[in-house]
Amino acid sequence: MSNAIVTAAMVAIGDELLSGRTKDKNIGHLADMLTAVGIDLEEVRIVGDDEDAIVKAVNELRGAYTYVFTSGGIGPTHDDITADAISAAFGVPCEHDAKALELMGAVYRSRDIEFTESRMRMARMPKGAAHIVNPVSVAPGFTIGNVHVMAGVPSIFQAMLDSLLPTLRTGAKIQSVTVNCPFGEGAIGDPLAAIQDQNPETVIGSYPQFDGTSFSTQIVIRGRDATAIAAAEKQVGKMLEQLHSKREKTGR
Amino acid sequence: MSNAIVTAAMVAIGDELLSGRTKDKNIGHLADMLTAVGIDLEEVRIVGDDEDAIVKAVNELRGAYTYVFTSGGIGPTHDDITADAISAAFGVPCEHDAKALELMGAVYRSRDIEFTESRMRMARMPKGAAHIVNPVSVAPGFTIGNVHVMAGVPSIFQAMLDSLLPTLRTGAKIQSVTVNCPFGEGAIGDPLAAIQDQNPETVIGSYPQFDGTSFSTQIVIRGRDATAIAAAEKQVGKMLEQLHSKREKTGR
Repeated sequence: MSNAIVTAAMVAIGDELLSGRTKDKNIGHLADMLTAVGIDLEEVRIVGDDEDAIVKAVNELRGAYTYVFTSGGIGPTHDDITADAISAAFGVPCEHDAKALELMGAVYRSRDIEFTESRMRMARMPKGAAHIVNPVSVAPGFTIGNVHVMAGVPSIFQAMLDSLLPTLRTGAKIQSVTVNCPFGEGAIGDPLAAIQDQNPETVIGSYPQFDGTSFSTQIVIRGRDATAIAAAEKQVGKMLEQLHSKREKTGR
Repeated sequence: MSNAIVTAAMVAIGDELLSGRTKDKNIGHLADMLTAVGIDLEEVRIVGDDEDAIVKAVNELRGAYTYVFTSGGIGPTHDDITADAISAAFGVPCEHDAKALELMGAVYRSRDIEFTESRMRMARMPKGAAHIVNPVSVAPGFTIGNVHVMAGVPSIFQAMLDSLLPTLRTGAKIQSVTVNCPFGEGAIGDPLAAIQDQNPETVIGSYPQFDGTSFSTQIVIRGRDATAIAAAEKQVGKMLEQLHSKREKTGR
């Protein structure tokens, strides 16, 4: 951990995410995990199982952020083309990795499962890539440059991310304070904007919730400096007191 | 509905989606709805409440796809900057819309709620934009060019999308057949690749499921021609029969 800002982007890969057939669960998990360790997730793209689309997204993002994480498309079937696409993005050959073949071969032998050509597909990766350990189902993810390629099945994505995260550079953690606010955004918008202006070292977000009848809001104050957050929080508390006393006077 | 291909992209906007605080629900819903009406969702991006990031994403996507849909950032608080960003993307002023002010003003008056400056923010939109009706909480979304801007709160996003969808051009619907397959992808990879080769008018996807012990697969055959789908489905059925009889012979 340092005081530097470490940034990241994600590419979630799969036709099924764009057709609605599968609802993505990896983006939210990655966001949670990166926030926890102090890496700023700044952009996510979802693309289909299409080499050109994957290459374009990965190449645009890997130049712009410290890390790129991908999910999906590294299984054994013909529509799993992520290893080929990442190789194309880096301009290196996509090859069967000797160490991956060995690891996987040993497991299949021990389970008396045939090591078919399609299972061997899962050992393919860009030449020179390093493994990301897969404790669930052996076939590894991989890292090339600043791009980390993981599986789409959530339990395997999560396990691979657990293997990977301790090896990454992390930055100063963003801290946050959440204030539950019984008023809708319309009531707090003006004073909250003034508080944001007076507290430039924090980023104040407000998230409306609608229960079908009325709005309430969660106010989240974020920043890297605890003192600055506490100062803004105090002003938010004062704002809520004033809104409460106004409501008592006017009956709304 | 026509036989033309109609494409779309989505930009989901909000710092809270990238921090993990909020788990997006709009992407999957939009994907379901577009698939149902015959619009191909081809790309999704998630960006923060950052004008440059929104402008870049919207301008790249609106030139590449028939429609762009956005969610988030059109509420009344200082961090709701989507209307400004979309205006900047189109190079037009962001102004209070007279019709929106009138609509909202009438509702606030009837409820005896003060029409504050921050509530008026929700009537701001790019000059010349058309309204997307919001039956939930009045403040409209808007359409400019081929970009449709909707709220981030899922119930309001869904209601706005219901208002909008009947007005859009749609294409030939993609039909699909799902075959539940008790074998993992490793077992079906080789024969399924051969079936895909023999059925180029269909797109065959396979989606692994892992229950903590073993893998199974859902095989989805997609296409715009029912006869082609049926032919591929028949071959998949034959493949499963062969795998079952092989399993009976070998005991696995």
